[in-house]
Amino acid sequence: MIQTPYLLFLGDAPDQLAAKVAQGIKDWRPENAVGQYRMDGCKADLGLTDMSLTDAKAAGAKTLVIGVANRGGVISPEWKKVLVMALEEGFDLASGLHNLLRDEPDLVAVAEATGQALHDVRVPEVNYPIANGKKRKGKRMLAVGTDCSCGKMYTALATDQAMRDMGMKSTFRATGQTGILITGDGVPLDAVIADFMAGSIEWLTPDNDEDHWDIIEGQGSLYHVSYSGVTMALVHGGQPDALVICHEPTRTHMRGLPDYELPTIEQVRDTALALARVANPACQVVGVSINTQHLNEEEALAYMAEIEERMGLPTVDPFRQGAARLAEALAAV
Amino acid sequence: MIQTPYLLFLGDAPDQLAAKVAQGIKDWRPENAVGQYRMDGCKADLGLTDMSLTDAKAAGAKTLVIGVANRGGVISPEWKKVLVMALEEGFDLASGLHNLLRDEPDLVAVAEATGQALHDVRVPEVNYPIANGKKRKGKRMLAVGTDCSCGKMYTALATDQAMRDMGMKSTFRATGQTGILITGDGVPLDAVIADFMAGSIEWLTPDNDEDHWDIIEGQGSLYHVSYSGVTMALVHGGQPDALVICHEPTRTHMRGLPDYELPTIEQVRDTALALARVANPACQVVGVSINTQHLNEEEALAYMAEIEERMGLPTVDPFRQGAARLAEALAAV
Repeated sequence: MIQTPYLLFLGDAPDQLAAKVAQGIKDWRPENAVGQYRMDGCKADLGLTDMSLTDAKAAGAKTLVIGVANRGGVISPEWKKVLVMALEEGFDLASGLHNLLRDEPDLVAVAEATGQALHDVRVPEVNYPIANGKKRKGKRMLAVGTDCSCGKMYTALATDQAMRDMGMKSTFRATGQTGILITGDGVPLDAVIADFMAGSIEWLTPDNDEDHWDIIEGQGSLYHVSYSGVTMALVHGGQPDALVICHEPTRTHMRGLPDYELPTIEQVRDTALALARVANPACQVVGVSINTQHLNEEEALAYMAEIEERMGLPTVDPFRQGAARLAEALAAV
Repeated sequence: MIQTPYLLFLGDAPDQLAAKVAQGIKDWRPENAVGQYRMDGCKADLGLTDMSLTDAKAAGAKTLVIGVANRGGVISPEWKKVLVMALEEGFDLASGLHNLLRDEPDLVAVAEATGQALHDVRVPEVNYPIANGKKRKGKRMLAVGTDCSCGKMYTALATDQAMRDMGMKSTFRATGQTGILITGDGVPLDAVIADFMAGSIEWLTPDNDEDHWDIIEGQGSLYHVSYSGVTMALVHGGQPDALVICHEPTRTHMRGLPDYELPTIEQVRDTALALARVANPACQVVGVSINTQHLNEEEALAYMAEIEERMGLPTVDPFRQGAARLAEALAAV
């Protein structure tokens, strides 16, 4: 569990896109974002107050979160100076970089000396149990995709937001690096040892109030041969009561697999539902979420109307339209 | 890759069952088993020549394999003496125990000093790639089960044996500890990091002759919620041309999951085949393997006749009848 709130480190980001993790935190958990820390030459700006380490500390920030992709996969000497100073000032550090904080001997030494924590959210910090399959109290929604990177995290975050706006009890449950940094908590599922994948999701989504929903971030796709095992563990470990199917309509092949066509939304519905009912016979598919970023407004609306008609399910783009209709569909379960 | 042949260490096994890993090696790869090493009080006997370390070395053994379960999950001081001596005599050590060899500082120190290897087959020794889904040459069979521990390894080993007896090109591909110790090679799939599961199976079953079969050991079950993600990675990473469904007919619930009924053989056929065809559209189900150990001869034959009629597929118990009919079914693919 990462201590919130955060100071968001944007480093020397070459452009706004490089700071998309920080942007996600600011968009979805603005209460976690006290301010931003930018170095000389930084081309990203979240519109937050620029703060020194001392200012941010005084404003209550507890963790410096690296909200930016690093260049060349290494933590540069310029970054290192700021990270060391942050530890000395009493900040924990959190990062989703491939280059782990814990692999930097100087950071490890300073963290030990100052008693501060280094959180590498790509690496599990918990010994997860093996899944026991026992029915848990409370309700769970899982976002499943026709492909990887088609909007599952966004859909889950937007649905969670819409549910809370409607006064429902809801918790977004992160299963990837960005989601974990946004909320400060979660399971880096792609880095979990195979035998413990489903158990990690049971751990992440424990017993809760009967009217509480866990909104579980999906990973991969049952039809993506590189990562389908990860998706399967979510379908069984998550015990979902409801599935929302996520789709990006302009893909010509599965991400990273040029020889593989995308499945239809109907195929994902039928496959995911049959498998989900092994763990939860009451599971149902409640909606479709379309990522229409590559369509114009007219095309997007026409496409969604077509899918809504074809599937007989509420169909929205949560980015264009919000996720209120998905939240309503869950309220009706 | 573990150096063969082996001296099989039976330690102070309390009974024959405790030495089942050693028994598996002797049954399936007798050419790997130069002899057995038994300590005072050992109650297991494989019928191999009892050898001292010096005898076994002279007979060509290269690795001392711990072929016995340890008591209390620890490597005892009595065992340790033999293991240290074996390293000093020039043996590598191989083990599938939870208590890793590499976690014993004395073994590590002696292995380093002598230049011998410690193989903990529960832990991957390879950095596997992420699966790329590319079609590979050669053919592959995967054993899939209605449940865990229902005879998948036995079925794969027996089919591989029957194929080689028929003069076909076949390689058993181990995906679990026992299988790896039997053959000296394989992937400990349940210990692989989630993102690399399918890639590890692609690595294990690379391009081969068009008329060569990899016979892949299955793990878990698509219907076992604790391990289904592992099974899924085999179905997609293995790109099987043929599936054999394994079933144990007297189970009253899924192993370790008292609230979960077993799926029918038909359910596993339909689910596994549909998923397998994502990676290999030509995949077919070619046979059924029944573990009839809890049925008498008459019951077993009647049950298999019923399944064969119902499924329209060759149905055998490879332990009672051998796997020749499964090998023939693969030859006909």
